[in-house]
Amino acid sequence: MRPFKELIPLEKAQDIIIRSVNPVERVEEVPLEDSLGRVLAEDVVAQINIPPFSRAAEDGYAVRAEDTFGAGIHNPVKLRIIGKVDAGEVFETPIKKGECIEIATGAPMPKGADAVVRVEDTEKDGNFALIYSPVYPGRSVAPEGEDIRKGEKILEKGTVLTPSKIGVVAAIGNKKVKVYAKPEVAIIPTGSEIVPPGEDLAPGKIYDINSYTLAAVVKKAGGLPRIMGTVEDDEKKIRDYLEKALKYDCVVFSGGSSVGTKDLLIDIVSEMGEVKFHGVQVKPGKPTWFAIIRGKPVFGLPGFPTSCLSDAYIFLKPAVEKMAHLPKSDSKRVKAVLSRRVVSTLGRTQFLTVRIEKEDGRIIAHPVFKTSGAITSMANADGYIMIPSNVDLVEKGEEVEVFIFEN
Amino acid sequence: MRPFKELIPLEKAQDIIIRSVNPVERVEEVPLEDSLGRVLAEDVVAQINIPPFSRAAEDGYAVRAEDTFGAGIHNPVKLRIIGKVDAGEVFETPIKKGECIEIATGAPMPKGADAVVRVEDTEKDGNFALIYSPVYPGRSVAPEGEDIRKGEKILEKGTVLTPSKIGVVAAIGNKKVKVYAKPEVAIIPTGSEIVPPGEDLAPGKIYDINSYTLAAVVKKAGGLPRIMGTVEDDEKKIRDYLEKALKYDCVVFSGGSSVGTKDLLIDIVSEMGEVKFHGVQVKPGKPTWFAIIRGKPVFGLPGFPTSCLSDAYIFLKPAVEKMAHLPKSDSKRVKAVLSRRVVSTLGRTQFLTVRIEKEDGRIIAHPVFKTSGAITSMANADGYIMIPSNVDLVEKGEEVEVFIFEN
Repeated sequence: MRPFKELIPLEKAQDIIIRSVNPVERVEEVPLEDSLGRVLAEDVVAQINIPPFSRAAEDGYAVRAEDTFGAGIHNPVKLRIIGKVDAGEVFETPIKKGECIEIATGAPMPKGADAVVRVEDTEKDGNFALIYSPVYPGRSVAPEGEDIRKGEKILEKGTVLTPSKIGVVAAIGNKKVKVYAKPEVAIIPTGSEIVPPGEDLAPGKIYDINSYTLAAVVKKAGGLPRIMGTVEDDEKKIRDYLEKALKYDCVVFSGGSSVGTKDLLIDIVSEMGEVKFHGVQVKPGKPTWFAIIRGKPVFGLPGFPTSCLSDAYIFLKPAVEKMAHLPKSDSKRVKAVLSRRVVSTLGRTQFLTVRIEKEDGRIIAHPVFKTSGAITSMANADGYIMIPSNVDLVEKGEEVEVFIFEN
Repeated sequence: MRPFKELIPLEKAQDIIIRSVNPVERVEEVPLEDSLGRVLAEDVVAQINIPPFSRAAEDGYAVRAEDTFGAGIHNPVKLRIIGKVDAGEVFETPIKKGECIEIATGAPMPKGADAVVRVEDTEKDGNFALIYSPVYPGRSVAPEGEDIRKGEKILEKGTVLTPSKIGVVAAIGNKKVKVYAKPEVAIIPTGSEIVPPGEDLAPGKIYDINSYTLAAVVKKAGGLPRIMGTVEDDEKKIRDYLEKALKYDCVVFSGGSSVGTKDLLIDIVSEMGEVKFHGVQVKPGKPTWFAIIRGKPVFGLPGFPTSCLSDAYIFLKPAVEKMAHLPKSDSKRVKAVLSRRVVSTLGRTQFLTVRIEKEDGRIIAHPVFKTSGAITSMANADGYIMIPSNVDLVEKGEEVEVFIFEN
């Protein structure tokens, strides 16, 4: 195998990637009920006033406020009830001096009325309401446009749609919303030993794991995975796959353990674009490379499933989030105590998968890493710890920070 | 309006709800690529060994270990290369004494070979390999079933499928996975003033907000929202809607601001099932009720959008998570400094929406609440603070914990 020219530090590799990728500017319109977590591609401007009409803020009687002046517990004002208006209805006849209308919260204020007397401050007496408390004009009324004025910008381009922001869009009557398209990420495992799950396993073959773990990480990061299937160690086939994959926004290769594949792939990639780095001071993940071809980011991740997955978290996920216009998400972290001594390699940041368990009220992190090829370390892991490049040993009982694998 | 019999504390209401709802036991099969975040409805048992065959763990030469004994830098052992095996291939001819086979990482070990000499410790010399270092049997070989044995349980029923667990399922060749069905949650806003977004707004009408915010919260909690449209204040219509809605796993009503609707609804619900509580010491959210009808949870949330949403977070979300077999999710929280004095009501837990901003390196929480009906408090809010029921005042500058609204 070709030696790595120079291993670069993890942070530098992450920095190169994040500077090299750009948010996807394509826009699509989605129904409001499918918009959770999407990112607004335009400002949302109110086309209506909110509330759209002056409305009662309490149940009671709509009145001309001046008719209630002087009312009191012992000398109620008597107003003639000329009708009733419920939410969703409109009372057309304007009220005149000495009149009132029974009104429900949310119902439009009748013409002529400028206040609502709460039902608690009244008593019904046949066709009349006894008003026991005076109100000032505007009392218990939510005037048209009080909350939002027509033409007002209510949500900015770039806003991530949470439940509350979705509610704001619904409030002004939009049933669709313009959002940025999700970045489409082509996923290509290399190696002729790899076959898709569901097929029979011929001798010497193993199942494709990385397409599925990578797809899940891409999805979680707000991207749209495009599982393209395995490419063999053949120059023409690799070129064909790359051409197809470059229609998408980003391409991710994983591994290829057959002798020479990596060299062939990196040679083709170098020729078609610019390799930004090849080799990172991180364990696992040393052979990781990253290139830009025709403006599109192309990742070369290791083939071993655990290495590929931890690489996906540290390199691919932040890139996809940036392409998706999403803020960089933080892993959930917990403090734990290491269950046994762990050695690490100086000069390389090490990621170690761990299982966490509560014991006697403490949280214990048990290393579950067996070998790079081991699936059980993925099955049993709840997360990973990161051992900095300048640390070669973490003692049993030391406090570590566990980054939780989230769904 | 009917007075509340007794307001119960927030924690008691949450406790009643969580004890009353049960996980949904229906099972469905989904493609592996759609399984992120789903919950396994059965143990996953390996039908194959992993690795499925003994394989080389490094690039080099497959040898009979004993042939290398005594090899050294100055006296290499010379072995005849009888072939080459790449990952994905099988080399049929067994090797004999004095022979070796060029082998790639991941390739099956040829018959007769019991170790791999790393390429770094060899040199090619025509049809021969010079071996500069002895190896013991098993060196650089991953034996069949080393990682996982056929018949071994590798993931337990109830496991949430994260990217790594999905990888484990792929590793054993399953392209589908049996998961619990998502709880289906019927969403019904009440009130004849409410029309769906996208329709024209007749006088006196307002747009349906709660269906969309509730649907988003349900989705986020692992449920499947069923938006059923508005039900009017009519006994027969409410009964019809309830019958339809009770086909789902859970029913959520929101509000109804017209006089009498709430009474009518709660009367029908009381008659059809058991009302577990009606009225909570929380602000907003006082009129919240919760009932069980035919074993299914039925929520009555307030109509005002901000009240409905905060109720959804504190009451509905944990219930849906439990129905979905998911662990209770914690809101992301940040510590912030309150930008102004806030008064609260003793005896009621208050939720107050805030916007957060960084100023001079500190995180400031600005209350954005206007009125219960206000949409702008939803538009501008990044999260909320909770003022305990025994606190009536939070001073400007006090530290508060902000629960972030996540997408």
